[in-house]
Amino acid sequence: MTDRPAPGPRTFDAVELIRTKRDGGELEPDAVDWLIAAYTDGRVAEEQMSAMAMAVLWQGLSRAELGRWTAAMIASGERLDFSALSRPTADKHSTGGVGDKITLPLAPLVAACGVAVPQLSGRGLGHTGGTLDKLEAIPGWRAALSNAEMLDQLEDVGAVICAAGSGLAPADKKLYALRDVTGTVESIPLIASSIMSKKIAEGTSALVLDVKVGTGAFMKDEADARALAETMVALGQDAGVTTVALLTAMTTPLGLTAGNALEVAESVEVLAGGGPADVVELTLALAREMLVAAGRPDEDPAEALRSGRAMDRWRAMVAAQGGNPDAPLPRARETEVVRADRDGVVTRVDAMAVGLAAWRLGAGRARREDAVQAGAGVQLHARPGDRVAAGDPLLTLHTDTPERFGRALAALDGGWAVGDDAPPEQPLVIDRIG
Amino acid sequence: MTDRPAPGPRTFDAVELIRTKRDGGELEPDAVDWLIAAYTDGRVAEEQMSAMAMAVLWQGLSRAELGRWTAAMIASGERLDFSALSRPTADKHSTGGVGDKITLPLAPLVAACGVAVPQLSGRGLGHTGGTLDKLEAIPGWRAALSNAEMLDQLEDVGAVICAAGSGLAPADKKLYALRDVTGTVESIPLIASSIMSKKIAEGTSALVLDVKVGTGAFMKDEADARALAETMVALGQDAGVTTVALLTAMTTPLGLTAGNALEVAESVEVLAGGGPADVVELTLALAREMLVAAGRPDEDPAEALRSGRAMDRWRAMVAAQGGNPDAPLPRARETEVVRADRDGVVTRVDAMAVGLAAWRLGAGRARREDAVQAGAGVQLHARPGDRVAAGDPLLTLHTDTPERFGRALAALDGGWAVGDDAPPEQPLVIDRIG
Repeated sequence: MTDRPAPGPRTFDAVELIRTKRDGGELEPDAVDWLIAAYTDGRVAEEQMSAMAMAVLWQGLSRAELGRWTAAMIASGERLDFSALSRPTADKHSTGGVGDKITLPLAPLVAACGVAVPQLSGRGLGHTGGTLDKLEAIPGWRAALSNAEMLDQLEDVGAVICAAGSGLAPADKKLYALRDVTGTVESIPLIASSIMSKKIAEGTSALVLDVKVGTGAFMKDEADARALAETMVALGQDAGVTTVALLTAMTTPLGLTAGNALEVAESVEVLAGGGPADVVELTLALAREMLVAAGRPDEDPAEALRSGRAMDRWRAMVAAQGGNPDAPLPRARETEVVRADRDGVVTRVDAMAVGLAAWRLGAGRARREDAVQAGAGVQLHARPGDRVAAGDPLLTLHTDTPERFGRALAALDGGWAVGDDAPPEQPLVIDRIG
Repeated sequence: MTDRPAPGPRTFDAVELIRTKRDGGELEPDAVDWLIAAYTDGRVAEEQMSAMAMAVLWQGLSRAELGRWTAAMIASGERLDFSALSRPTADKHSTGGVGDKITLPLAPLVAACGVAVPQLSGRGLGHTGGTLDKLEAIPGWRAALSNAEMLDQLEDVGAVICAAGSGLAPADKKLYALRDVTGTVESIPLIASSIMSKKIAEGTSALVLDVKVGTGAFMKDEADARALAETMVALGQDAGVTTVALLTAMTTPLGLTAGNALEVAESVEVLAGGGPADVVELTLALAREMLVAAGRPDEDPAEALRSGRAMDRWRAMVAAQGGNPDAPLPRARETEVVRADRDGVVTRVDAMAVGLAAWRLGAGRARREDAVQAGAGVQLHARPGDRVAAGDPLLTLHTDTPERFGRALAALDGGWAVGDDAPPEQPLVIDRIG
């Protein structure tokens, strides 16, 4: 008898797979596994994967293909495991909006109700801020934790918001960078698998998705947002993660602030039992979903806010990562006020205009390596439906670099309106999918 | 006054252009120029161009976009100029078929009628042979000529078949290699611009296209072949080149031979006034089109064949490039015969099966760097419609390397049939577009 090598995994021809997808065919499970693994280690070239991404954008992925694609991206890296914790876990992901600071009050609030929240976050790029950028406005706070530190904090405090390690879904990291330069970002299956591969790799057993729709969201159109939400919920459920999605409005900024330190201050107001009604409403809605998904439907998050238990968790969470919850937050050196041009009712404050203005003021970055200004951003003094008199302040712009005011004001031009009649009320939570 | 730099050409964002095409928009002329130039010199990355190619495959190119795309590929390299010749010029391009040796008798035939034929050709890859591979079966013949040698030969002999220099349309060369590995070959506008950019850069004033349709052709489907022919004719006319196309059948091999020396021998038979009827018919049809397109409608190519004038030009053309037209052609060392399995009428000899068999016998190459066998190939003893008796030879396989017979016979398995009734007659020239 001679030694024979064990049969290896099947190999495929990248061009054949591209042609199959291009012509509307279905990729078999082994082919998807091979494609993602071979792309991750360089056997499938960047130019081949970009053609495949465009073919997927054109022809879509079936539910079976998408599940396998996502699983293969998860399998490309490490996977966290929270099963040793004494509490259930629940995670939340937002597709990104202007003034979306919800993670900040939400994580300690849910932790105060007995469910651990491992929130691996990113930095902002473009007009929506990043959760880590916001928390870094707190003096001393650090985003980088080891897996062991994260587990300890989840056990002790119950909530952690930290940077995602590079070991999770490296295939997604590579593919995301490729899609960014090849015009293949706007594919619902590719967006869904990018988000869900990271979230599933994070090891949570319950996941609540906040899918934004409106001018300030990635998805401008409700049908697209709904399709993305349904796709992600199906992916999560197929992977054994209890997953629900809320479809929420992102036409007006959330709350009265967009900018890093400004949003931290507003989050602390919410944890103190105050804050803007819409931020409180969405925080509670998402908290209830997370508690139900984690098997704690009887917990009352509103009570946890009122009693100060959520605030206690916030302070513990910030302190555990080196932050001083009592330190004054940074303030921008310069401000500029935009005033109402007539008496009337505010009819519109456009989320995209405010997001762009905050970005241009220094709250966000144009390139990954840019720094952000902790104090920069936009503060709203009135929201749609509020009465104002001519000359009343509508918006205050904050920056350390006043040469930025011009381009920020240009972004706001046409982005708000005062009229005679109050605009129709729009629900914040449009639908629930799950 | 200070010196100010002259305004440079406009620059564009590759991702924006990809998104425009992906979403079904039209690229403006300057954007197409920039894209092709920037891709050629590396400012647009391979992965960006492959996404663009897939988007073009999906959304197509308008006539204006395609004209500009082709012009930009021509502008990426040098352009030949035959305007100093004392005769008009006409060129021919075939999309490739099995046994397609038509260029060999056609070029000297048209030259014998007073029109110069500059035929820049390629080598074979895959199941269709290359014109240069065929001529290289002639002892001493060389494919590489300088531009000056080509012009001299066109003036003296009137016909030249030689290798295309690498200076013509380098953008096409780069894009073709990319399309080959990214599943983006099968796009009618990209195929059309690839062919036409080289042909227009070759500087001819009249062009006749032989667009093949059938099992042995790149286009299996008549509608696709017709669309390709119409696209190329429009491109040629828009570029000021008198262009017509014949749509011709490629379901059965052309003539009775597929293989390099075998096809040279058959071409010489045609030049001597004999040869298979279909080869003669197509040679004359294309010759008439070239003569009309070049402004010599009164010339009679059939007479030029009969009189031996075409043969004289052949001998002069071969000799001018170092070949000995009287030298015996190479013959393969081994043969194998496939025989009829019953009495009846040949109903089918499939072009793809014969092409694959000839390729596997050594007539073609799998990779660009492979050598070919001059004597290898397949000889047909009967064509569809011919009566045969059981045991009659149908095909003879030729190779220097008899271990190749097995795979060649496998390619022919099911590729021919003998039945009771003669198959319906199929026209060789299906249509004329121009």
